[in-house]
Amino acid sequence: LEAGDEGLAYELVEPLHPADIADLFELLDPRERRDLASAITDLMSSEVVSELNDYVREDMMEALPAAAVAEIAEQLETDDAVQLIEDLDDADQRAVLAEMEPEDRAAIESALSYPDESAGRLMQRELVSVPEHLTVGDLIDYLRDNEDLPTEFFEVFVVDHRNHPVGTCLLSWVLRAPRHIALADVMKREQTLIPVEMDQEEVALRFQKYALISAAVVDENGRLVGQLTVDDIVHIISEEAGEDALLMSGAGEGDINEPLRDAYSARVRWLVANLGTALVASLIIAAFGAAIEKLVALAILMPIVASIGGNAGTQTMAVTVRAIATNQLTRSNTKRMLWREFRVAFLNGVTIAVLIGLATAAIFTPMLGVVIALAMVINVVVAGLAGVMVPVAFDRLGQDPAVASSVFVTMITDSMGFFAFLGLAVAAGLAA
Amino acid sequence: LEAGDEGLAYELVEPLHPADIADLFELLDPRERRDLASAITDLMSSEVVSELNDYVREDMMEALPAAAVAEIAEQLETDDAVQLIEDLDDADQRAVLAEMEPEDRAAIESALSYPDESAGRLMQRELVSVPEHLTVGDLIDYLRDNEDLPTEFFEVFVVDHRNHPVGTCLLSWVLRAPRHIALADVMKREQTLIPVEMDQEEVALRFQKYALISAAVVDENGRLVGQLTVDDIVHIISEEAGEDALLMSGAGEGDINEPLRDAYSARVRWLVANLGTALVASLIIAAFGAAIEKLVALAILMPIVASIGGNAGTQTMAVTVRAIATNQLTRSNTKRMLWREFRVAFLNGVTIAVLIGLATAAIFTPMLGVVIALAMVINVVVAGLAGVMVPVAFDRLGQDPAVASSVFVTMITDSMGFFAFLGLAVAAGLAA
Repeated sequence: LEAGDEGLAYELVEPLHPADIADLFELLDPRERRDLASAITDLMSSEVVSELNDYVREDMMEALPAAAVAEIAEQLETDDAVQLIEDLDDADQRAVLAEMEPEDRAAIESALSYPDESAGRLMQRELVSVPEHLTVGDLIDYLRDNEDLPTEFFEVFVVDHRNHPVGTCLLSWVLRAPRHIALADVMKREQTLIPVEMDQEEVALRFQKYALISAAVVDENGRLVGQLTVDDIVHIISEEAGEDALLMSGAGEGDINEPLRDAYSARVRWLVANLGTALVASLIIAAFGAAIEKLVALAILMPIVASIGGNAGTQTMAVTVRAIATNQLTRSNTKRMLWREFRVAFLNGVTIAVLIGLATAAIFTPMLGVVIALAMVINVVVAGLAGVMVPVAFDRLGQDPAVASSVFVTMITDSMGFFAFLGLAVAAGLAA
Repeated sequence: LEAGDEGLAYELVEPLHPADIADLFELLDPRERRDLASAITDLMSSEVVSELNDYVREDMMEALPAAAVAEIAEQLETDDAVQLIEDLDDADQRAVLAEMEPEDRAAIESALSYPDESAGRLMQRELVSVPEHLTVGDLIDYLRDNEDLPTEFFEVFVVDHRNHPVGTCLLSWVLRAPRHIALADVMKREQTLIPVEMDQEEVALRFQKYALISAAVVDENGRLVGQLTVDDIVHIISEEAGEDALLMSGAGEGDINEPLRDAYSARVRWLVANLGTALVASLIIAAFGAAIEKLVALAILMPIVASIGGNAGTQTMAVTVRAIATNQLTRSNTKRMLWREFRVAFLNGVTIAVLIGLATAAIFTPMLGVVIALAMVINVVVAGLAGVMVPVAFDRLGQDPAVASSVFVTMITDSMGFFAFLGLAVAAGLAA
């Protein structure tokens, strides 16, 4: 395809949706991306740019002159323009902002003044707000007569003279009401307001919980400063829900477009931490070195106890992390969860213990079968409790439970697996 | 709170949003749930019921007579009513349906005829569709005059005489256009149509990718049969993105309200599978039993190689599973991903190898340091490649890569860790 024929490439790409063109860029390697971009310059609309993966966009924008980036940013809605510019480094940010119209620049600078990943960064400033005294007819006339209003919106915010939101009208309510009815009788007074400083994870939970399509964003004085629409939030809902698997494995952001050195530094950190926890387990084995020399079966079987414990701990930890992330696990039901996981772990532990105990008794000795079965029950139950308590503890300390729990849970299940098995074997006089 | 005073409980619950009342029920244990429900019967609106967690709702509905469940179901929109009824067992389903009005019953039975987790189960039948020849003014009059239409909707579907969708109008476009303009000039002809049989995961990806607020659902003949709105999809986006962490750990659905025996049977299955893979690793250790008897340091150090490999493999696997789930990894860029992960794994492997090699050389012997360093590089690189290839292989075989990859990746990293370390040690003559 990309072997020279730019005209053909253009024809093939032209009928695609901007989101599909963006996907196409992501599938190409960096050199091919630039070739394709130069072949289809006039199809590179702002929609395509706003659909691109963060890393791919950053890579492509860094290759363009500041004036070209500024031109693209001016065509975007504030939230998309902010996304584009916030990824650039400081010098490039300043260069691009300097090339923009003063009005657009001011909007973006004000958005950038809010904390990273806050509602203020995500919101659109373009919205429709009207005073309370209008009728449905007045509102429709206002919408028809004002060219500057946005074309796509889902609700009209009703505000008082201080620009504080007092109610909201879904457009379908407006369309179904006669012209003479007052907006005050159509609007709903209860609405979910989003403070401008709120973290995006919390924003995503509110949208999900209250099934919001859009919501008003207010500053610290309660004034309406922007709106959030669900199409900007679904990406965050999906990212926040999906990142737990990546965080628990220690893979960082885990985006396949992330530069190599970022992926390396995110992951190697956790491997080094894991090396530390593995050394703890090794110290425990070393303490039983004499026993292993006498009975090599211990060395053969000990990884089984540790491995099953690790798996059981990871299962419980995944459930706990998800329950914390979705606000289903709070102080009031932690004890119930712990008791529930204790029972699940006990059942699991006994099941596995019977299987491995019988197999060991048959191959080695009945006594070694009893020892490994007991060690297995102990380790799986400890794994279940650690799988709840470690993430809960991190959460109470204000840390993200997905990030660091794995290393600790693995350390506990590995160490306890080796300790319980080797310790019981020595206590039973097996290696005497 | 629940110690007797029903009046007080009522007063406290009354001002809450239905979604908050639903959360409150989820935090209580099953007996308390029934007490609270009886204290606040008239606050138990259909909104509260539709916001409840599936398991909690099922548990509460099973405690109610069929007529009461039918009454609740009739107040709900079709999609919520279907959700309520599909969880009940067959006999209860029939009893509840028998108590419903014929029209509602027919709608629910038709939804239940679509496959589980398909668009047909999720869609609302209530929607606004109009013929193409109307003007904006005609549409507004139609919306004002017809009491039967839904009150909340985000777009109007334009259909031809065979009820095939030909275009769609966002309400904001209608409100901003003068009355005399034809709908044909306001509507957008390109729209994302959802086939009624489409799986909910695919539906969620479409909503995300094309930033949809609502979408038309069509049957196999292309006729408009319902609509999906984003507020019903956000739950699925979040569930589908969040379940990978649970599936990879083998924790099944991992809902904290899941009955104990379901949680046990989902998890024990994977622990048994893990027992099988742990036995493979043990067989490898057993083959080197004589070497371990001669040099017990091998038993002390071997879990380190296996553990770091397992962690590195899990990192790569989490990244790969996420990339497959978000459609970022396809046939065309798998080779690029494999090459990228090879390089990350090599850098990670060398870093860890240097650390553990130096420590081992200092504590044991320099030769053992060289052996563990080499084994570590080999195992981390193998882990990186397996972390990509195993989930990709499952995906190509039509299996969910999140479900079974873990067991295989762990088996590969454990076995390779023990084999590379013990095999190299023997080859180096360390245990001669």
